Amino acid sequence: MILLFTDYGWQAAYVGQLKAAIYHVSRSAAVVDLQHDAPVFNPRASAYLLASLIDFIPPDALILAVVDPGVGNSARRPLVMKADGRYYVGPDNGLFNVIAKRAESVEFWRIDWQPPGLTKTFHGRDLFAPIAAMLDMGAQPELTSLAADEIDFANCPVELAEVIYIDNFGNVITGLKGSSVSMDMRIHLGERELCFAETFSAVGEDEGFWHINANGLVEIAVNQGTAALAYNLKIGDPVYMYQSEV
Amino acid sequence: MILLFTDYGWQAAYVGQLKAAIYHVSRSAAVVDLQHDAPVFNPRASAYLLASLIDFIPPDALILAVVDPGVGNSARRPLVMKADGRYYVGPDNGLFNVIAKRAESVEFWRIDWQPPGLTKTFHGRDLFAPIAAMLDMGAQPELTSLAADEIDFANCPVELAEVIYIDNFGNVITGLKGSSVSMDMRIHLGERELCFAETFSAVGEDEGFWHINANGLVEIAVNQGTAALAYNLKIGDPVYMYQSEV
Amino acid sequence: MILLFTDYGWQAAYVGQLKAAIYHVSRSAAVVDLQHDAPVFNPRASAYLLASLIDFIPPDALILAVVDPGVGNSARRPLVMKADGRYYVGPDNGLFNVIAKRAESVEFWRIDWQPPGLTKTFHGRDLFAPIAAMLDMGAQPELTSLAADEIDFANCPVELAEVIYIDNFGNVITGLKGSSVSMDMRIHLGERELCFAETFSAVGEDEGFWHINANGLVEIAVNQGTAALAYNLKIGDPVYMYQSEV
Repeated sequence: MILLFTDYGWQAAYVGQLKAAIYHVSRSAAVVDLQHDAPVFNPRASAYLLASLIDFIPPDALILAVVDPGVGNSARRPLVMKADGRYYVGPDNGLFNVIAKRAESVEFWRIDWQPPGLTKTFHGRDLFAPIAAMLDMGAQPELTSLAADEIDFANCPVELAEVIYIDNFGNVITGLKGSSVSMDMRIHLGERELCFAETFSAVGEDEGFWHINANGLVEIAVNQGTAALAYNLKIGDPVYMYQSEV
Repeated sequence: MILLFTDYGWQAAYVGQLKAAIYHVSRSAAVVDLQHDAPVFNPRASAYLLASLIDFIPPDALILAVVDPGVGNSARRPLVMKADGRYYVGPDNGLFNVIAKRAESVEFWRIDWQPPGLTKTFHGRDLFAPIAAMLDMGAQPELTSLAADEIDFANCPVELAEVIYIDNFGNVITGLKGSSVSMDMRIHLGERELCFAETFSAVGEDEGFWHINANGLVEIAVNQGTAALAYNLKIGDPVYMYQSEV
Repeated sequence: MILLFTDYGWQAAYVGQLKAAIYHVSRSAAVVDLQHDAPVFNPRASAYLLASLIDFIPPDALILAVVDPGVGNSARRPLVMKADGRYYVGPDNGLFNVIAKRAESVEFWRIDWQPPGLTKTFHGRDLFAPIAAMLDMGAQPELTSLAADEIDFANCPVELAEVIYIDNFGNVITGLKGSSVSMDMRIHLGERELCFAETFSAVGEDEGFWHINANGLVEIAVNQGTAALAYNLKIGDPVYMYQSEV
């Protein structure tokens, strides 16, 4: 099973061509769209978002992830990672670093295989999709092992005290794990202060709060409102959590 | 085969995680996205919309439907319904009531099974998806039979003289069945009056009319125009149909 | 394998019902969404866009394409085409003409089969989907052979010097093949003149250029900008390419 995680959006034929390329190699592949509105051209925020999703998918599902502002840049390596038994295929630009840092075991390979007509702008279709299909079906594409110190982990904390995603309801997702914070902490946004609440209905209408979302991340929300608008937040904004003074 | 009907939208990973949860239980499940922009947080309008779709899908396809403003509220039961031989899985909030009222045979069960890490906010992924997968593969999840009088059918007419959905072309779908009205009826919208026309091309450009859409519902449209804007209609607005005076 | 190409959009249940209709006939069909935002009601532009996609999909995949402003018009024939070994199912309104003109071998059939409850407005679900499913599974639906001169190829050049699509990043795709132009050509847009660049990063920020996109078409783009807005371009606008004077 291959799960797709990209910033392609649902418009145009980008996702469709990615799938067609997989099926071209492996007709019986099972392909699932996990998410196609990852933070656009933002592998850093996407890395924390993707890491929050992997606990909720079948253990043997392979992840094909493409958030790749450096496509066409020959310095950006195409990568295969195996972390805690699961394969990941995509660009070596930090997109898999958070998963790597949190994993107990991890291996990296550079993809050496190249298709005959590799384009400059669509490595997802031309390169990553065939490799993902090959790995999913147990074939052995041409890969060169990379040592972990060949991967650039600079600027990659295990958690990120920033906004990493805003969903279609305007909820603001951060890169902080709910398991790392305590419920008496508060989030400071300018002069405002948000307390923890377990659910939306625990606070009044139009009231803001933070909670731990269904993927285990600290999320800022407004009951029946739009947190991103209410607090003027966008991807990359810092999120400060403080222990309440008693 | 499992058909998905939700108000999740295509953004974020909500639909993707729903599918991953199904495949986690049943790797060979066939999952089809029926609709993901059901009227948001509106199980009442969604109930009429969903009821209009079921005649056009394979008879043994199971419906997994989630339009669930009460998620996390312990009073809202998780439900399995079997109506005219087809299974439905989702919240007990009226979403399946229209199908139930129109069915010749119907049975209800409360879902007793609970997963280890049930979240407060994502019962679609954590609870309904696994149950749907189990039923689809013929397994027997823990269910408790409910009598029909334990289901709340208040405020649920067989048809609904209201706007229940507005499509991406601005066509206005009502909860009225075309088979219940006659073609000489008119729809009054303030001072305007709309007559029946069989197709868009039967009226002039920018002219409004009503017709019976491909799912058998009365629909208000404007030839080469946007009916929702032209008549300022939104979900929940009443729709009055009158016999023309001769 | 059946690939879907429509202008239905992802909203509403249109795509979902199309798929359900396919599975109704052929439960084990493999169905892939190639693109659902083809130029709306514009079979001409869609024809060039679709033609640019077919080199990148499995050779035996069938295309079910619906961009059909004339649905319900009895003069518009339902069509099956076989071009270079691949089946195409959809309306006879020019949508497949570009592929036909570029093909080495091509055959046409009119679809005579009709389902019991054919609606006026949803031939995709009622007519084209079942036919596509039948052909995909090797069944023989009722078809009548058409001679090539019964197909209207008027106003269908092999390439189109017009804008045919604008993607979600505002890139402007034309109906010109990159293999037909030379890299020293320029595109004139009013008083502006765009030169070729191989990739986005080869020009300065906010600078416009043309390149050959991953599907082989001439595309107008702006580095880190939105070409459609910068040059005020929309589908159907002419695109003039000139040899540079030396």
